[in-house]
Formats: sequence, structure tokens, C-alpha cells
Amino acid sequence: MTVKRIFEIDPWKIISHKLDKEDKRLQESMTSIGNEYMGMRGMFEEKYSADSHKGIYLGGVWFPDKTRVGWWKNGYPEYFGKVINAVDFVSVDIKLNGASIDLATDKYSDFEVSLDMQKGILTRTYVVSKGNAKLKVTSTRFVSVAIKELYANRLEFENVGSEPITVEVDSKIDADVYNEDANYDEQFWNVLTKDVSAAKGRLVAQTIPNNFGTPQFTTEMAMVNTGDLKPVGEGQIGAKEVVNTLAKELVSGEKANFEKRVIVTTSRDYETKQALTQATDELLNMQAAQTFEQLLAQQAEIWAKRWQKADVTIEGNDEAQQGIRFNLFQLFSTYYGDDARLNIGPKGFTGEKYGGATYWDTEAFAVPLYLATADQSVTRNLLEYRYKQLPGAYHNARQQGLKGALYPMVTFNGIECHNEWEITFEEIHRNGSIAYAIYNYTRYTGDQEYVTHEGFDVLVGIARFWADRVHFSKRNDKYMIHGVTGPNEYENNVNNNWYTNMLAKWCLTYTEEIATKVGQDKLTALDLTAAERAKWQEIADKMYLPEDKELGIFVQHDGFLDKDLKPVSEIPADQLPLNQNWSWDHILRSPYIKQADVLQGIYYFIDKFSPAEKKANFDFYEPFTVHESSLSPSIHAVLAADLHEEDKAVEMYSRTARLDLDNYNNDTNDGLHITSMTGSWLAIVQGFAGMRVIDDKLEFNPFVPKDWDGYRFHINFRGRLLSVSVTKEKTKIDLLAGDDLTIKLNGQSEHLTV
Amino acid sequence: MTVKRIFEIDPWKIISHKLDKEDKRLQESMTSIGNEYMGMRGMFEEKYSADSHKGIYLGGVWFPDKTRVGWWKNGYPEYFGKVINAVDFVSVDIKLNGASIDLATDKYSDFEVSLDMQKGILTRTYVVSKGNAKLKVTSTRFVSVAIKELYANRLEFENVGSEPITVEVDSKIDADVYNEDANYDEQFWNVLTKDVSAAKGRLVAQTIPNNFGTPQFTTEMAMVNTGDLKPVGEGQIGAKEVVNTLAKELVSGEKANFEKRVIVTTSRDYETKQALTQATDELLNMQAAQTFEQLLAQQAEIWAKRWQKADVTIEGNDEAQQGIRFNLFQLFSTYYGDDARLNIGPKGFTGEKYGGATYWDTEAFAVPLYLATADQSVTRNLLEYRYKQLPGAYHNARQQGLKGALYPMVTFNGIECHNEWEITFEEIHRNGSIAYAIYNYTRYTGDQEYVTHEGFDVLVGIARFWADRVHFSKRNDKYMIHGVTGPNEYENNVNNNWYTNMLAKWCLTYTEEIATKVGQDKLTALDLTAAERAKWQEIADKMYLPEDKELGIFVQHDGFLDKDLKPVSEIPADQLPLNQNWSWDHILRSPYIKQADVLQGIYYFIDKFSPAEKKANFDFYEPFTVHESSLSPSIHAVLAADLHEEDKAVEMYSRTARLDLDNYNNDTNDGLHITSMTGSWLAIVQGFAGMRVIDDKLEFNPFVPKDWDGYRFHINFRGRLLSVSVTKEKTKIDLLAGDDLTIKLNGQSEHLTV
Repeated sequence: MTVKRIFEIDPWKIISHKLDKEDKRLQESMTSIGNEYMGMRGMFEEKYSADSHKGIYLGGVWFPDKTRVGWWKNGYPEYFGKVINAVDFVSVDIKLNGASIDLATDKYSDFEVSLDMQKGILTRTYVVSKGNAKLKVTSTRFVSVAIKELYANRLEFENVGSEPITVEVDSKIDADVYNEDANYDEQFWNVLTKDVSAAKGRLVAQTIPNNFGTPQFTTEMAMVNTGDLKPVGEGQIGAKEVVNTLAKELVSGEKANFEKRVIVTTSRDYETKQALTQATDELLNMQAAQTFEQLLAQQAEIWAKRWQKADVTIEGNDEAQQGIRFNLFQLFSTYYGDDARLNIGPKGFTGEKYGGATYWDTEAFAVPLYLATADQSVTRNLLEYRYKQLPGAYHNARQQGLKGALYPMVTFNGIECHNEWEITFEEIHRNGSIAYAIYNYTRYTGDQEYVTHEGFDVLVGIARFWADRVHFSKRNDKYMIHGVTGPNEYENNVNNNWYTNMLAKWCLTYTEEIATKVGQDKLTALDLTAAERAKWQEIADKMYLPEDKELGIFVQHDGFLDKDLKPVSEIPADQLPLNQNWSWDHILRSPYIKQADVLQGIYYFIDKFSPAEKKANFDFYEPFTVHESSLSPSIHAVLAADLHEEDKAVEMYSRTARLDLDNYNNDTNDGLHITSMTGSWLAIVQGFAGMRVIDDKLEFNPFVPKDWDGYRFHINFRGRLLSVSVTKEKTKIDLLAGDDLTIKLNGQSEHLTV
Repeated sequence: MTVKRIFEIDPWKIISHKLDKEDKRLQESMTSIGNEYMGMRGMFEEKYSADSHKGIYLGGVWFPDKTRVGWWKNGYPEYFGKVINAVDFVSVDIKLNGASIDLATDKYSDFEVSLDMQKGILTRTYVVSKGNAKLKVTSTRFVSVAIKELYANRLEFENVGSEPITVEVDSKIDADVYNEDANYDEQFWNVLTKDVSAAKGRLVAQTIPNNFGTPQFTTEMAMVNTGDLKPVGEGQIGAKEVVNTLAKELVSGEKANFEKRVIVTTSRDYETKQALTQATDELLNMQAAQTFEQLLAQQAEIWAKRWQKADVTIEGNDEAQQGIRFNLFQLFSTYYGDDARLNIGPKGFTGEKYGGATYWDTEAFAVPLYLATADQSVTRNLLEYRYKQLPGAYHNARQQGLKGALYPMVTFNGIECHNEWEITFEEIHRNGSIAYAIYNYTRYTGDQEYVTHEGFDVLVGIARFWADRVHFSKRNDKYMIHGVTGPNEYENNVNNNWYTNMLAKWCLTYTEEIATKVGQDKLTALDLTAAERAKWQEIADKMYLPEDKELGIFVQHDGFLDKDLKPVSEIPADQLPLNQNWSWDHILRSPYIKQADVLQGIYYFIDKFSPAEKKANFDFYEPFTVHESSLSPSIHAVLAADLHEEDKAVEMYSRTARLDLDNYNNDTNDGLHITSMTGSWLAIVQGFAGMRVIDDKLEFNPFVPKDWDGYRFHINFRGRLLSVSVTKEKTKIDLLAGDDLTIKLNGQSEHLTV
């Protein structure tokens, strides 16, 4: 495993004093910022002629790109939903004595880039030379968490040479933008209108038409350029851009500021073009009332509140501290529950790989964090999101010739986008996680209302899918599920994946259990008969769950134990990660596991398995696990902690917490692994602190990693706010707000009062 | 199963009196012609504005089209080799009183299209009306089997209206051509030179450059237009075309002929541009010496010789007769063994689907036919073709991280082109058929020279692949092969496919057997040690071959018997063919078999299995078989005949013989199933006549299908020519040429003399 750490260790900052051309994309990914509404990679404002990925994204704005595959299979979706690389409103071409600054070719010194996670602000500074001219440039930028539609950028210039110089900026809104992953190499934006004056510009663009009946999005971007630089001319309109030019002469030692603010509105919020423009005007006025310093202060204040609620403090280990803060920062930059129409995309606003807005990651890995660190309405919104997409899930099942609802691997609107048969058609365990999240929400919040109403519609759709997807094997007198891909995507098209079968069985049982709690009107509305429920029960009773009694383990799938079972430790180091060194054929046939599979199932129901079962399965599977999915280490950390294998738990924590910071999987240049960023939180809270909810009660069984002094975090639970502080000496749990609460700490009941 | 028969029954002709726009592509496929060197679909010469597929192809001229997949997997090939749609030298725009004839919109009558298989000539006639003008057009065309580079087309015009008319033709060579399956929608031809005079035109084109180091092809096409029509102007040169215009006025009742001859040469045969042009000139002179009638007679004469050698005559069933003749005609049009650099593409010259020149179909289905109907050098050429591509096969194995040689699914040069992991990486049984063809050739011809020299290199490469591709399963104490796709492509990524494991074991054993016969120098050259040979033996001895003793069958693969085992007869008719009605997921999980899988293995070694074994497996698997591969029915026909299930054998014969004629699989519009066209011959000769070669001896166990009176065919065998005539009364086997021969007929030895 190779580690590539291009940023320095700092508890609150992502900071570097080096610009490495080779790692430019990696640096850009790591310095991404976002405010749920929009976000962007850390590419420079100014020209940069070497390899770079300019990426700006708007939440919920997407394009259905016609499916392109080598070989069509019946059932493939018509399009793949892509996060659109937005009209570029960030670029500012900076000219020194008439020539564009380009750090790819210019001489420069004193470089620093720093993402302040405490405040949500990205700064960058350097001194650039062209001939005798020497200019210090300092850029400060953020997307506002106070005014979501606002992007603000300040450039500070200082003539640090001995001769007078001219500084000129071309500040742009530019729709000449491509998605790197476009199937047909076309541009997704058509420009509708362009307006410009000396220091202002506005551009309205619309996504190109599509044949799939999904919405076309319109976006309006309006910039205002102010500061010490003065407009040159009345602005320019290009084929796809509007440009304001401003300039100033600086004598030696002289400083000047330039400020660019952009308001971004979209047809997601404003139906008509007129409403869009009106909203833009109002927002322009609103932001104009504050100075840049005031905006900065406001930004810092709101982020401070977020941190007050959710910060996890680690004493004695800055690497670990930086890791979890980076994860929480990027996660909250992607999704903070303000807009129920959004979800948590795999790359957030940090890249366009994978496409789609929603994966099962949300239900499996994000819901537990939001349950504990945000209002319960945030999680409820995440559940409602799936409820609203139930028609799409029914559509997906029909595409496979099946009954019921099949939630998609990747989607924007409920309709499956992904187009590999082994994933799209086979990685159906995802359906189980949708149901599990309902169970998890209900268990954590105690709210029975959702599961017996909208949630039940979802559960019934899922149960009907499973009941049709199983087949009966006569010679075994068992129901089986053939042709699936489990969470371990390093095996495809396997039979009787234990995780999938177990989850399907649980879905049927749980849905039947809830059916006894809903009203008759609901049953009637869903046409759910006693016969259908009896059939579910029969399938659940006769579901085949592969086990090896001798080894004391659940078997990953029918063929697993026939493999050449050599542990990962026997693979030469230079062959890792496997996905970059082995052929797909080699990977598929090997016993190596990409992410928790059997163990994911044990994690889901961690209190339902005996310690012996947990230990046997962990000890058997973990040695075959390469953790090449970013979703893997956290689950292993929680399980290792549960088994008191503390060193293993800490090792896994490091991998999840610093996955992107240390570029463990050598792919962070494409963007951050947003949905796995809950992993470090899970590892600390569910792992090290051993938090569980069992029979409506919070339980903790904490330990402190060897080289930490301690850690602290806050938790919401059923209207209470708790503080948990763990040191080597003791664990202190305080009720900060809400009614009295009885919890269990290390097996002992404790009654907490404010 | 739907049958679509758009041509009439005729023992020697593919004839229709209807032009059905809906089935235009189907009609074009069926009326394809070829001469191994080049060929074309039966599209019209004149304009046709409705749906049609203009396809002209040159043997061995191809383009490496950069791979385009939805999701890249390590090990995928860089390009997919495509048969190039050639520069169009067929089009002749026919104008009646100045307006183009277009049967898609014009009124017409008396339409007939007829492919004369006895002579290798396509004719077409109709009467077209435009206003009061009425013209009878008769087209006759062929690609010469005497002068391979020659295409000849005669158009006969007759004014069948009452008023005088003008007939004008624009005769073209046009490089503005696309492949329907191009990955990047680009054109594969660049025009190098264009020359034209009043009635002659010449165009040289080259394939566009590629990044893969494969050859760029140059092709020169030269046309000469003659007859009663007189040139109008001095010819025209367009952006990508050359055009000759000729015209004539015809009074009522008057007739006129037009003749277009084209010489096509390529850089495959002539290295320099100069040599190409010189050859073209010589060929132009050569063809000019003969009248169209003389050329026609020559064409008929050569085809007559082919039929003398290979015709299978069926008495009493014209449907069956037409079927086998159509298959032999199209097969010989594609490959007649004249050029050892060519092979048998899946669509021949009848379409561009699938790409590639060579599939395992050649070894599995074509070699037996060519062994018996052509000189043994033809089959030897087919084997040498694979020997020459051994470096490519080693490359393919390396791509998968494996030792030895892996022959490709699809190729032009030995390098794998196909890019679905479940096929490319997993359908490795193909390697077994390459070895089997060597065994089959050696067994049939008695020639030990090939197998102990070049053939041994191939066998060792293949054996080394298998020895590395197996893995040892400790708990079973067996070698296994996981992650394969068997011949039944309706299941993917299965474990221990009996056919694959059996064939791998046989390859190892056979290679070891031959190793005992080759010289020490050969062993040394191949670095083949005793240790390696011992390892092969160990693997062969411990190879896992799944069996079910209770059912008495070999098990298709590990999970097969766990499926929901309902026979095909229980599938509602409107759901067939499955590949057009079911989702891929549904197909994969079902027990339905696309083509012989276990039975393919039994077919290969039909004399090594007991009648009870053959019967149990046939009776078990055939009811699950949907025969949706064109390669399926023939193997089942042979096995059914072997088991004396004569009705079944005849049913299967009909499916293979008339697969395209009756469009059984509803995909003949894309082109003919060339490589499966040996199926009807296999069904008759190996099936109905029961021909086998056992211990160097030819054996026959014939029967005559109920509604046939009898059948006759010729066979080559080790320097002899035999005639086999089977009627309900008796079987007559005559030695027509060669040394005395002892054969077995119905178990009795017969000594044959000339």
C-alpha cells in the first residue's frame, strides 16, 4: 500500500507549501469547497496550462447521457445521469504587464495553499516573476454557507519587485465547458443570453435537450467585479462567455485588491426565466450589503456552529484529528440536510467520476452519522427521498422482468443509470440497505410514524422484489438467489451470497412484522393479502443461508471455499492495490475481498450475533480483505473494536480517516470519496466508543487507541444532546440538553440528567 | 419460434417475386455474393431511399477501432478489429427521363430477384413507371471466381412504354462510406487519388491511420463502363467519388445494355502503389478479353466443378435441398481455401456485425467440412493460420497475467479484439478447440507431421495456459477452473464448467502424448522439462469434472443443478427467442442453454462415451436448450442421430439448414450466419450418415429421414474420393479414386476398390 501525503499535518488546515505539477489534480481534489448548493474543485482562478481538472458543480443539476456500452444487454438503462460540469464562473485570467500568469510555466516562490476547515475558506498565495516584474498574489475564496447562491473570491496583489508593473484581470463567466466523462464528447450547455457592462456580466445557459423526458436545467450566473482595479472598456461578449477586464498600475511596494462575487441561480428553484433573473437581482443586492470581511466573518461563524455540534476532538494525535475533521468538513460541504431534493453523491462537488447523485452508501454509511449529529428531520429527508423515487424503483424491477421495487445503484430520479450487467442487474443487495435505513432510523429515533406510512410502501415494494427474485431449488428444498454481486465487487455473478440472502430474508420478515402494525386501509391500498404475506414467510423460512459448520462461518457464496485461499499477506507488495495491478480475470477468481461482505451483514445486526460468530467470521474474512473500496475500513474498524482487537481497529481507522489525505487508493485525483467520509466517524463512535442502540437504549463500551490521549464528541438521541468524553482514565457522558435518560456504559446502567 | 420465409422454395435458387420494404435488409443478406477475395450484400445498384444496408467487403482488409466500453476492466484489448465496409464500387444511379429510379417510392411491377447458386450469379428484374414512361430493368451481377479481383454488372434496359424515353446512368466509385458499427462514427477511408475519363474511373483509397501498429490498407478500384449507352461528358470527380455518366434515348420497345466492370486490388497483394496500379492495369486488360457472356459461362463452369465435388443431393425434399445448397454456396463464397492468410468470418461478406475474421467456429464447425470436401491443404492452411498467430495468443494470456497462449475469441492478427470480460477473459474453452482441430486434422488425414512440428508449438502454448489457469482447491484435493463462460453464453462466470475442465484436461494429456513423439530438439527449443510435463499430468489426473451419479450426467457447472429446472416447453411461445424477450438477468439465472455445452464435449469425443452416457446427457440437457446460437442445432442433430432419435435429428437439421432462409433467430437482416453454415453438412454427413473416423478407419451408420427419399454426397479421405449414396433401401459407398480402402458400414467391414 502506497501512501502519498502532499499536505502537511495540521489539526484544522489542509495546507501545503508546494505546487507539484504531477499531483495537481490531487491537490485540486483535496482543496475542494462546497455548500450543498454548489461547490468546486481547488483549481486555480488564473490560467494554468499543465494538467488540471477544472470542475464546478451545482447540486441536483444533471444530464442524462445516452448509454454507451460495448455490447448491449436487455435491461440496460437508456441513459447514465451525469453531474454536469457547470458554466465556469471561477476563472480570472491574471496578467502581469500584459502576459497571463501561468504557474505551469512561470517562475514562482513562496507558494502556499491552505484550506481552513474551521471557517470553510480556501486561500492561496505565491510570488510570481516575469522578467524583472515580481508580483505577490493572494487568493481567498469560498462558497457561502449563509447565502447559498454566492461565490466570493478576493485577489490581493502586491508589487514586490523594484519596478512599476501593470496588473490586469479578465474575469469570466464561460460556458465553453466539457464533462471529462461525456459519452459523446458533446457539451451539455447551450448559452441562452449574455449581458455585460464594464464590471458586471451575466450569462444564462440551459442544458441541451434530451430524449428521455428528464428536465432541462437553466442556470443564471451574474458576476460583479469590484476593488482597486478599474474597468478597461465596457466588457466583452464571446461566443460562449462574458468577460470583464480591470487593471491597475502598481509602483514598487504598492498593493491592490480585486473582488469577484457571483450569484448562481437555477431553474430547480425558479420556474420561469423571469423569476430566475429577479431572484438573481435580489441576491446580488443582498450580498452587496456586506464587505468581504463581513462575509468571511459570517462564513466562519456558521461553520463554527457546525463544529460545535459535530466536532470530534482527538487528543494526542494530530494525524487522526486532521483525518476526521477533513472528512466531516467535506461531508458537510456536500450535504447538510438543507434541501430534501438532494442526496450525497459519491464525489460530491469534487469530481465528476461515477455520476449519479445517490448510491446505497447513503443508507449504509451516512444515515448513522446524520442520525447522531443532525436533527432527525435530516435523516427523514433522506428516507423521503427514496420514497419519492419508489416509482423509479418499480420501473427498474420491470426492466428486469421482475415484480416489486428495485432501488438503483446510481440515480438522480429513481431510475437506474448504471450499465454493467454485473452491477446494475446483480448488485441487488442495495435494496436491502434501503429497508435497513428505515429500520435504523426507527430504532434510533423511536419514530414509528414513518415506517408505518411512507416507509411501509417502500418496504412492500422491496419485499415484493425479493419474493420474485428468489427461485426454489427443488433438490435442496430451499429458496435461493442466484446471479448476484455482493458488496464485494471483486466477485461477480455469484450464487447465494450470504449477505444478500440474509438481507432478503430479513426484509421479508421485517416487512411482515411492520405489516402487523399498519392499518387495514394501508394493507388494502397496497393490495397486500394474507396469501402474499404467507408466501413471504415461507420464503424467509426456507431461505438458503450458506454456512460452514466446521469453520464456524457464514460462507460468502456457494463457490468461495473452493478458491485458492491464500491470505492478502502472501501477495507481493508491488501487486497492490490489486485493481491497478491485476487483470479483472485474476481479481475475480481470487479470494480477495474489496470491502466487507459477510462482515457487512454482521455489522448491520451486530447485536444479533454471538461474540464467537463475530470472531470466527472476522478472523476468517479479514485476512482476505484488501479494503480497496473506501467503504471497507470503517466497517472493519467497528467490528474489530467490538471484538476488542484494538490495534486492528486503529489501523482501520487510519485507513478510513486519511484515505484521501494519504491517497491510499491512488485515485483521489479524480475527486474525494465523499460517501465513505462517514467512515472515520463510524470508527470512532460505533467502534472506539462502542455506541449501540439496543432495545431503545444507548450503550457505550469505549476504549482509547494506544497513541491517543482521548477523544470527545457530541450525540443527538431522541431529543437529547449528549457529550461523550473518553480518556484512558475514564469515560464521561454528560446530558447537555433534553429529558432525563438512562444509558448503559460498559454494561452498567447510568441515569443522566442535565 | 417464428419463421420468416421471404424466398420461394427452389433446389438451386434463392428467388422471390416480392420487394418487401420491411424486409429489405433481410433480402439483401440472403442475396449476398462473394468469391473469398471480396463480396457484397444484395443491395441494389440504383438508388433506394428507404432502409437498406449497403455493404461491400474485401477479405482481410480491416480496421482496429479503438475500444469503447462503458466501464474499463484491466485486461481489455486496445481495439476491436472491424471488417471495413469497402469503397462502394457497385452503385449505379439509373435515371429515367432525368429522374433517379428509386423503388422505395416509384411504382413498379414484375419484380424478381434470383440468386443462382449453381452458377454464382445474382439477377434482378422489374418494370418501373414514371408518369407515362415505363422501363424494364434487368440486372445481372457477380464477383468472378475466375478473376478474383473482378466485379461485373450488366444492366439491360427495355422501353416497355409507348413513348420514347431517356435512360441515363451515373456509374460510381464512391469512398463516402461508413461502417454502421464504427465506435467513433468516423470514416475509415481516406481518398488518395481520383482519375476519370468519359467511361472510365479510378480511385485509390487508404484506411485512416491507427495508433496500434496494425497495417493501413490501400485499395485501388478501376471501373470501365461499356455497352449501348454513350458517355455524356468526360466524367466527374467529386470530393470522395468518381462518376461516369452514360445515356441513351430509347423508342418504344427498344432495348439497350449497360455494362460495368470493376477491378479491385489491394495492398495485401501489392506492396507499392506502383505495383498496385500496374496489377490493376493488367487485370483490366485480362478481363477485357472476354464478353459478359463468356465471363458468365466461366463463372458457371467453375461453380459447377465446386458442386461436383461437394454437392449434397437430397431426394424428395426441396426445402432441405435448398437449405444445404444455400449453406454450401455461402460458405464457399466466403472461404474456399485459396488464400492462407484468410479465415472464415462470422458474417463473411454479408454484414459487418461482430467484426473480426476468426472465431473458434472455424476449428469447431468448419474444419470437419473442409477436411472432407476439400484438399487436406485447405485445413492445414487453417491450422497454419493459428500457428502464425501464436505470438498474439501469448500476448493475450499475458494480458490476463497468465502463462502460455490464449487464442482469441475474435481476431484478425491473433490479438484479442473482443471486450466483454465474461467473454474475452472467461470464454477460454476456445483454446481447447484450437488443440482439438489439430487432433481432428491428424486423425482424419493421418498426417503426423503437423502435430509434431508447428502444431506442437501451439499445443504447448495451450497446455501452459491451462496449467496456469487452473487453481488447486485444497479442501477438494482437486484442480478447478473458476470464472469461465462455457459454450452456453447464457451463463457467465461459472465455476467448473464440465466442458471447459474436460477439454483442459484433454489438452494437457494430448500435448503430453505428442511430447513423447517429438524430437528432443523440439523439447529443448520449447524448454519443456520433465518437471513441467509431470505437473501437467498431475493436473490432468486431479482435474475436477462435475458429475451427478444419480442422474448419470456430467454437470454443466457447479451451480447448474440448483436452478429452477423447468424445460423449454414450459416457456410461453411469445417469450421466445429469449434473447429478444427476457432481460439478461433473467436469462443468466435460468437453466436455458443457448447452444450445446456438455453436449459439445460429448460431440467432440463421440466415440469415447458409452451410449448410456450419451443418452442420459442428451435427454437431460436438450430439453433446456433454446438453440438461440446458430451453432447449436447441428451438434444436436449429430447426437440425436447417434442416439437413433431420428425425428429429433431431422428437426435439428431443419433449424440449421434453413436458419437464415427462414430467419429463425430473427437477426439475418444483419447478415448471414456464415460459420454455422457447415451445420447442415455436419447434420447430414456426421448425423444422418453417421460418418466417424475411428482408429484410422472411416465408419458409416446411415439412416434416411422419413420424408426424404435419400441423399448422396462425396467425401475425401486420405487421398481417396468416395461417393456415399443412402436410400431407404440401401447404402451404397463407392470408391471413385485412390487406393483400396477398408471402411465400416453399419458395423461391418467393407473393402472398397475403384
